[in-house]
Amino acid sequence: MSALFRKVSQVAVIGTATSIGWLLGYNRSHEKGGANFPAIETVSAASYQGSIVNTQVPDVVPVPSPNAPRIAQIMRFGFPSLSNVRSLNDYVLSYDTRNRIPYWVCEHLTAENVAKNPNVDRAKCDFHEDTSVHQYFRSENRDYKGSGFDRGHLAAAGNHRRSQEDCHETFLLSNMSPQMDSSGDVLSTSDRTDLGTFYPPVLTDVRKMKAQVGRGFNRDKWNDVEQYCRQLTKSYANVYVCTGPLFLPRREEDGKLYVKYQVIGQNHVSVPTHFYKVVVCESSTGELDLESFLLPNVEIDDSVPIASFHVPLETIERASGLLIFDKLSQKKFKKINGQKVGWF
Amino acid sequence: MSALFRKVSQVAVIGTATSIGWLLGYNRSHEKGGANFPAIETVSAASYQGSIVNTQVPDVVPVPSPNAPRIAQIMRFGFPSLSNVRSLNDYVLSYDTRNRIPYWVCEHLTAENVAKNPNVDRAKCDFHEDTSVHQYFRSENRDYKGSGFDRGHLAAAGNHRRSQEDCHETFLLSNMSPQMDSSGDVLSTSDRTDLGTFYPPVLTDVRKMKAQVGRGFNRDKWNDVEQYCRQLTKSYANVYVCTGPLFLPRREEDGKLYVKYQVIGQNHVSVPTHFYKVVVCESSTGELDLESFLLPNVEIDDSVPIASFHVPLETIERASGLLIFDKLSQKKFKKINGQKVGWF
Repeated sequence: MSALFRKVSQVAVIGTATSIGWLLGYNRSHEKGGANFPAIETVSAASYQGSIVNTQVPDVVPVPSPNAPRIAQIMRFGFPSLSNVRSLNDYVLSYDTRNRIPYWVCEHLTAENVAKNPNVDRAKCDFHEDTSVHQYFRSENRDYKGSGFDRGHLAAAGNHRRSQEDCHETFLLSNMSPQMDSSGDVLSTSDRTDLGTFYPPVLTDVRKMKAQVGRGFNRDKWNDVEQYCRQLTKSYANVYVCTGPLFLPRREEDGKLYVKYQVIGQNHVSVPTHFYKVVVCESSTGELDLESFLLPNVEIDDSVPIASFHVPLETIERASGLLIFDKLSQKKFKKINGQKVGWF
Repeated sequence: MSALFRKVSQVAVIGTATSIGWLLGYNRSHEKGGANFPAIETVSAASYQGSIVNTQVPDVVPVPSPNAPRIAQIMRFGFPSLSNVRSLNDYVLSYDTRNRIPYWVCEHLTAENVAKNPNVDRAKCDFHEDTSVHQYFRSENRDYKGSGFDRGHLAAAGNHRRSQEDCHETFLLSNMSPQMDSSGDVLSTSDRTDLGTFYPPVLTDVRKMKAQVGRGFNRDKWNDVEQYCRQLTKSYANVYVCTGPLFLPRREEDGKLYVKYQVIGQNHVSVPTHFYKVVVCESSTGELDLESFLLPNVEIDDSVPIASFHVPLETIERASGLLIFDKLSQKKFKKINGQKVGWF
């Protein structure tokens, strides 16, 4: 067995055959441009790859100057998409006008900005409508009231403690998605296998890990993942987080795959079936690690470790329609989902 | 009864109470800007309205010069959104990377460019992948094969007859959505009422009009609507068409609203529950009329007139998350869905 093949075997254990190409960095193309559209394409979006002009992923994405606009720091590794982007004081969101929830939110965590601040009181924040969103597409507090779902932060309040205003901005309803509270249904798992070629079994494993006991998604397991991200700032100089909803299909008795989700309130706010969180950690010496989580929007038992929700980034990218942190070549990462990666 | 009130009554017959504001042009705000985001917001998107700077809808949107780029002519009345926009020779599309179908396609029809052209042979066109779309998000011919769904054009082939190349570009798979063919299921209608405040009963009426007889959606009723749009070029100098998919909820036995749709193929191409088509017609003297259609993606009986599928534009806008032809004030229209409108 050649050294080459051994390394392939080594990394393959965290994915499936279809993911090997991804792990080797071959499947994920970073070429940009395309979109034969000179009038608009002033900023390159992640969604198209150029048929004519290929831009290589840079070897190094330098840390923006401390004086750079906050958005430049948060979005250092690229925009997942350019749909309805809104830059807040300390996070950036892309709003899905059809589902009345975010496509994604991006955050940049450091030990400094997640540190407890006696001048910031979360209890003084209130959920408020985002009046920058057209009234047709805006979610309202009354959409959530009595729905059985929490107003779940995607940019977590606890990540934004530099000022009361920063914290308050995370209470914008455009930063919320309906998350299962303790009265929610618990999904059955038995028929949730085989989502096809591009969805490796690890996703099925995630679904099997969910349990029937708990106080809801938002207040327990999701909170664990959020706290874990904050703890990473103790070990890493910079932690970049991209978070969003997913609408995944399940196979029904007729053998076909169907996406099904509830909409709540007069504004038909969509209830995601899952949520993702992708985290890039940079050490003080510039080494990069990646973790990507995919959690079903159901009650999850406290005893389930969050590492159970690791999935290949490709799974999240295909399901979300986004390329996440796409300025970074996969080859840059020393560890992916806790596993050391040996590039060659 | 005042003259004012009589006029309100007159226009209200084509909508419901919740639509009156819309008909009067009050609900539909056209302010743009917002999105506190100087680095990116170089082109105003339809989705945000400015909280600080309000841009008024212009009184007149002049006809672009014949030498203007085709995209300027097609998009004269505004972009419904700016997500993954691609400009083809004779139509413009916005691609939904999550669902692997368009968000919208826009076309500009004139008697000249829909006229039969002996040099254009549709039979020589073949469905082809859009290689400008990242491979994660691209639909493929094999996704549709054996799925029970047609590759339904959103920009219709018959609208683009200036050249063989123009026609061939409509066969890009990024211009397709799965449309019900004759082997498809037929939806039941009995439980498809009451979608809430913002969805007037006219939508329910549409759903009730669908019938159990026909050869499928794509080849029959949808084709009727497409032909109707081409015929409008006989009466109007310019016909602007915006077409796209919708994913509408239905109320289930538990009283809650759910969106449910199939996904097909390895790439999980989403099957819309409905399609919309919005048409702005401009006469040679500059008078404007509006028609907006919403059709369920099911077999529809030939005998059902296409006017049965008229809905208020607001319904389509709320459901799609788009503001369509938003450079045009509603007050500009002389007729909406075939009804004369008396503005005051």
